[in-house]
Amino acid sequence: MPPPAPSAAPSADAPPAASERVVDPQAARIGAHIRALRRRRSLTLVQLAAAAGLSHPFLSQLERGHTRASMVSLDRVAAALGTSQAELLAAAVPAARAPGDTRPEVLRADEGARGPFPQGEARLLTRSPAPFEPMEFVGANTDPGEYYVHVEDEFLYVVSGTVLLDLGEHGRHLLAAGDCARYRGGTPHRWSTAGTTTDTPTDSTTDSAAEPGAYRVLVVKQVLARQEAP
Amino acid sequence: MPPPAPSAAPSADAPPAASERVVDPQAARIGAHIRALRRRRSLTLVQLAAAAGLSHPFLSQLERGHTRASMVSLDRVAAALGTSQAELLAAAVPAARAPGDTRPEVLRADEGARGPFPQGEARLLTRSPAPFEPMEFVGANTDPGEYYVHVEDEFLYVVSGTVLLDLGEHGRHLLAAGDCARYRGGTPHRWSTAGTTTDTPTDSTTDSAAEPGAYRVLVVKQVLARQEAP
Repeated sequence: MPPPAPSAAPSADAPPAASERVVDPQAARIGAHIRALRRRRSLTLVQLAAAAGLSHPFLSQLERGHTRASMVSLDRVAAALGTSQAELLAAAVPAARAPGDTRPEVLRADEGARGPFPQGEARLLTRSPAPFEPMEFVGANTDPGEYYVHVEDEFLYVVSGTVLLDLGEHGRHLLAAGDCARYRGGTPHRWSTAGTTTDTPTDSTTDSAAEPGAYRVLVVKQVLARQEAP
Repeated sequence: MPPPAPSAAPSADAPPAASERVVDPQAARIGAHIRALRRRRSLTLVQLAAAAGLSHPFLSQLERGHTRASMVSLDRVAAALGTSQAELLAAAVPAARAPGDTRPEVLRADEGARGPFPQGEARLLTRSPAPFEPMEFVGANTDPGEYYVHVEDEFLYVVSGTVLLDLGEHGRHLLAAGDCARYRGGTPHRWSTAGTTTDTPTDSTTDSAAEPGAYRVLVVKQVLARQEAP
């Protein structure tokens, strides 16, 4: 028997077939985790949406798992909740490790919590809290999208492909495999493929020039000492 | 006019043609930096060698730039000096950035301080102090060499090739491109190519036993808050 619906929820608000509108189990788990953190911090939907610079209906959809947040939106929600994007993503992995588990962890190329990213995917490369957060981004977006801005320092390394890294007033930098960049907290940053040109590396199996070049970057974000949740 | 030699140095100790025995300018700069740090900490050669688990004559050679330290040895010297391997390597790059320079830094694939590594090379991926230390290791060593052991947490990501990561009592792990591992401070670790040996597990695609496979890994090491040098 399903648990009763919260009596405070006006039934007119409830969509007719809510369970059918859940995007996928991962989105549902991330949404539930955001909602739990928000309630623990005694924030209303409106307050958290305002703090994250998102619309209230969008945040509601997100908490219900009816939509997937972009990585930028997830980053904003995490910052407003005093947590990290990685922690929110990690909530999407049911088999996360216990905090006291200090054994080495090995993550295969097909493992790790994944999040949406324009024309690609982000993958969190740890399963438990770490002194820094490594993530892998695979994409082929020609639109750089919104800027990420956060207080932590960050490091970006190009594994394959060619990336145009846009650092706002600090210029745009064309980075190829083996190139890297480090930028301090507060620096706006976003990136896109630089691969429609003929400089796409040779190991790509796509032969058509119509496709934007895919890239793979490793991003390591600083983790600041943070307050424990009450 | 060159500065006078320290009067405490016995002249019988000086090799007849010291300048000719310097391996390269980088080795000389790293050696000079180690010597300066050692003196600032009022340690004798014998004391530092003992703390680092190295022989006194080897350390003397190292300080004079007459030999290049392995990455493991450099790591030990750094730990005994209360600094980091990356900081010692960074001393080898004359154009290091000023500490107060907070602009983004872009490092090309052919840039960065380099250090020796068995059958390969290590490359430091920052030019200034960072909240974590990213390094790239390119090699083809079939001999895993000595274990690294340090108090900082570390993360390893395989960019290309196949690596056999040996974590001591925590087992050996065959990692392919896109795989990664994270291990806590105190965990012994070393790696070798997994391109040729027959003890490599089954998912290796290499068919020729002739050449050892080259790999490229990105290693990110935690930076602990450290005491300032007096």
